[in-house]
Amino acid sequence: MSIEEARKLVEQCLTKNGCSADNSRDIASVIVAAEADGCISHGLFRVPGYVSSLRSGKVDGKATPKIAKTGAATLRIDGGGGFAPPAHSAARQLIVDMARSNGVVVAAFVNIYHYSALWADIEPLCSENLCALAFTSYLPSVAPSGGTKPVFGTNPMAFGWPRETRKPMIFDQASSVVARGDVMLAARDGHQMPNGVGIDPLGRHTTDPNQILQGAMLPFGGYKGSAIALMIELLAGPLIGECLSFEAAENDNRDGGPPRGGELVIALSPDRIGKSDWPSHGEKLFDKVLQQPNTRLPADRRYANREKSKSDGLEISKDAIARIETLN
Amino acid sequence: MSIEEARKLVEQCLTKNGCSADNSRDIASVIVAAEADGCISHGLFRVPGYVSSLRSGKVDGKATPKIAKTGAATLRIDGGGGFAPPAHSAARQLIVDMARSNGVVVAAFVNIYHYSALWADIEPLCSENLCALAFTSYLPSVAPSGGTKPVFGTNPMAFGWPRETRKPMIFDQASSVVARGDVMLAARDGHQMPNGVGIDPLGRHTTDPNQILQGAMLPFGGYKGSAIALMIELLAGPLIGECLSFEAAENDNRDGGPPRGGELVIALSPDRIGKSDWPSHGEKLFDKVLQQPNTRLPADRRYANREKSKSDGLEISKDAIARIETLN
Repeated sequence: MSIEEARKLVEQCLTKNGCSADNSRDIASVIVAAEADGCISHGLFRVPGYVSSLRSGKVDGKATPKIAKTGAATLRIDGGGGFAPPAHSAARQLIVDMARSNGVVVAAFVNIYHYSALWADIEPLCSENLCALAFTSYLPSVAPSGGTKPVFGTNPMAFGWPRETRKPMIFDQASSVVARGDVMLAARDGHQMPNGVGIDPLGRHTTDPNQILQGAMLPFGGYKGSAIALMIELLAGPLIGECLSFEAAENDNRDGGPPRGGELVIALSPDRIGKSDWPSHGEKLFDKVLQQPNTRLPADRRYANREKSKSDGLEISKDAIARIETLN
Repeated sequence: MSIEEARKLVEQCLTKNGCSADNSRDIASVIVAAEADGCISHGLFRVPGYVSSLRSGKVDGKATPKIAKTGAATLRIDGGGGFAPPAHSAARQLIVDMARSNGVVVAAFVNIYHYSALWADIEPLCSENLCALAFTSYLPSVAPSGGTKPVFGTNPMAFGWPRETRKPMIFDQASSVVARGDVMLAARDGHQMPNGVGIDPLGRHTTDPNQILQGAMLPFGGYKGSAIALMIELLAGPLIGECLSFEAAENDNRDGGPPRGGELVIALSPDRIGKSDWPSHGEKLFDKVLQQPNTRLPADRRYANREKSKSDGLEISKDAIARIETLN
């Protein structure tokens, strides 16, 4: 299936389930981009979840985001109870313009439902010569260091650095050892998870993905990853006036889609903050890393997958396509 | 020894070795604060390193930081080739004022020598109702994920969240599994390190701190910690026009003190960015974490040590005192 065909399949499905044309286009675009980049846990696999939340009425597929410039370097984007991608599309150009003129923009996205890959939110900013960070929380599934019950979401953070002649260096990583989507895929496909990924409802280490989904995932790197998950709760919650993961869960209707939440994006302009040689300076670091065998830069595998998907198309099972078609 | 006595001991030592009164006061204050908080690897243990760099002429103990307001929300602080604490003292009030009026400040500290604990840089900001992040790099000692040779510094990041009726929640963590200072202390005292902390010059896992100091430390949490170390190199280096860890090493005179480098501080005002209930909102998260047995908040152990030091004084060995006195 070509990328264009996949996009049409998803767009049509979203439109038939109540999305406006604009919303469908923005959402389908990030779903298919994830699939093409090999991030299948954020790809077509998620379409049923999007549809569930449209059908339950939790998420407004016709949302029109509202943007308020709250200061020279601060923005507040109210997603109007819609999915995150339309809010990003609406705010993107303003974020770029403000970061370029002021050196920094803090964009608080509130009243959104974030169900997509975080790198997709910052790649367009990094492609405009901005360095960017993004943080969002999710339903509680990660136990704090020392604890046994979920408090934190898988709470991804993404960081991107612009490159003059290449695609941006971007990482997008959950605060858990692995992404929750990967545990869900393992549960669906009957695979075991590696040791150290999670604990069962009694707090015992387990490799059974179903037990982990009922128990808790563990933060990466022990107490340090736990601290990062805690930071993300605060940045995407109280800092911007949106809910914490556990509050999101309390208010969620459990329709299988994402909870309401917030996202913080910080965009920084190296042109304004640093020196004019920043592009070659960043490359010196990347060269130094890649001089060593067995190293790679974050996102390089994704970009390789993207090229392959462009030339060869997407490998999507008939089952997955049928699953989406039945939602029409 | 009382905190005040320790401060005088360190201040006197720095002054005798060429620091101005202002510089001595600012530097001694953070050294003794680290000691009092139980962060002994950033405490009096470091005085000989400070003195080495003053004596070699690498660091200017009489530096006068220069501050440029480069935009509504951006600052550039040139430390004048001095240690970091005087630069922070000089910029602190302006950072607070700008963050309060604009919601965010990006403060680029350049031409400094950072040898102190990072939490000390943001605690005063968080005590003024700001949320703050700080990043700095160091001499290369951490291998990138998959590699065997040091490229990244131990590259700490600190994050702090203000609390209305308590001291701020702050974490300050190296991108390596443990802080380099802890490996140095283990080497000095003849202790082994736990498995997974580092590798020898041939890339083999080892528990010998001397082998790790000659080989490489490992990032925490595998490739995710490695990504964070990479991010910190970019934020404290090319973004602000300062050097990368490996460049710092190339230009360093190996006098045992810190290399020249940069530091990025981002201060955010929840009052301006979020809602007025942010203080109680943050507490809800902390309560949720602490409801579980065996959990604690970052910095709580430090604050407990601080109280104990205030009442009982500091436990400093005669050897350590003698070592500092011989530097007078």
